[in-house]
Amino acid sequence: MASAEKPVTAAILIIGDEILSGRTQDTNLRDIARYLGVHGVDVAEARTVPDVIEEIAQALNVLRARYDYVVTTGGIGPTHDDITADAVAAAFGVALEEHPEILATLQDKWTGEDLTPARRRMARVPVGGFLVKNPLRGPPGFGMENVFVLAGVPDIMRAMLEDVGPRLKGGKVTVSRTLRVVGTGEGVLAAPLEGVAKAHPAMSLGSYPFFGKEGFGANLVLRGRDPAELAAAVAELFTALAEAGVEGAREVEA
Amino acid sequence: MASAEKPVTAAILIIGDEILSGRTQDTNLRDIARYLGVHGVDVAEARTVPDVIEEIAQALNVLRARYDYVVTTGGIGPTHDDITADAVAAAFGVALEEHPEILATLQDKWTGEDLTPARRRMARVPVGGFLVKNPLRGPPGFGMENVFVLAGVPDIMRAMLEDVGPRLKGGKVTVSRTLRVVGTGEGVLAAPLEGVAKAHPAMSLGSYPFFGKEGFGANLVLRGRDPAELAAAVAELFTALAEAGVEGAREVEA
Repeated sequence: MASAEKPVTAAILIIGDEILSGRTQDTNLRDIARYLGVHGVDVAEARTVPDVIEEIAQALNVLRARYDYVVTTGGIGPTHDDITADAVAAAFGVALEEHPEILATLQDKWTGEDLTPARRRMARVPVGGFLVKNPLRGPPGFGMENVFVLAGVPDIMRAMLEDVGPRLKGGKVTVSRTLRVVGTGEGVLAAPLEGVAKAHPAMSLGSYPFFGKEGFGANLVLRGRDPAELAAAVAELFTALAEAGVEGAREVEA
Repeated sequence: MASAEKPVTAAILIIGDEILSGRTQDTNLRDIARYLGVHGVDVAEARTVPDVIEEIAQALNVLRARYDYVVTTGGIGPTHDDITADAVAAAFGVALEEHPEILATLQDKWTGEDLTPARRRMARVPVGGFLVKNPLRGPPGFGMENVFVLAGVPDIMRAMLEDVGPRLKGGKVTVSRTLRVVGTGEGVLAAPLEGVAKAHPAMSLGSYPFFGKEGFGANLVLRGRDPAELAAAVAELFTALAEAGVEGAREVEA
């Protein structure tokens, strides 16, 4: 594989007791993965850690060394449990400073006593950091080198992502197609699927069973960076399924 | 803190390209976290890794050494991308063997050619492993020492959890209460919240802002293992909010 073909990878670091307790259903992983995928960046790992500075900093240092990018979510608000800026500064071994641009925005909104110490905390960015725009509400996110630090609230996080995409140096976009088979189990689908998978080691083929009103069956998902190879693999899988006596495979949106 | 009071911890290891690509929204983390919480086990970390044996085995070895329990989901079906059993065997440095009980179940269901090599793969369990019952459909899960290996399909995963709970040696259950404040932002709520948090270092207090039809505000969540201390902290937070001029705080189900 040529160096230009090397996949560009990212990790997602989700910060929050709220997710680990099961109280809140995370959706940011899915949204970030889809967004990065469109920009040619594959999410290769995700971690969820508690609101503990050392835990966040340790995970961040592992992930930023291992992957091209890291996107974090959560912990950038004004309350005492919002410690992501402290953790990022600790991970990079730098101090925090009040960013003049954020401070000016806060001062536009609040004056005197209304600019509480808690609100002012949101101006803190690690030395050497850059800002990530927040077009929705509240203060911006920020970044350091290959790390992007976004809000945890889903709509704000998604809005901030729009300022992350243009900064990414993505690789070839991974594309996927899905064949849906109803009425045949994975035990029969496995052999034809594996045959095609072995013929295309650069691709990822997966089987995802379902069981519901429509009956039982599986979605066979083919993923790859080369659209021509993907098309060939889809055709080969249709043929292999037919040869195995599997009826009714059809391509679906997924 | 007495040794008997030490929190019992678990990690969740979610296995699957399907989750990392953003194609499928994971809900297993939340369901497992809630289930374990009721059994006095706190989820302290979660990781999502791709369908790669070495990645799964490496994460598993870190997590099973660090936490009291590990629960994995995904990758135990019959297709070539279902490699969790291989990864668990690799992590523990043992071989895989066909478990007679699973094999008998498979042989009850399929005979002759219908018992395909793919279906037979589902009988493989690491040497020394035990079975986790699957009352819903398909083969059982399994476990090794402090690791429980469950299906990725959510309803099967939840059904398997019912056979995990009785095997756990849980600690004190973490209980939580939530105060909801509408019309006051986190910038004002931060100080009273932090005051109560500092007075109760054994507890976890968090603020989760919202912004919607009801207006803006935050849910203030108090968590702890001592119900009496929790009740005291809730009362203190009501008082601190009132003293800060915050109106309309009320307790809600959460």
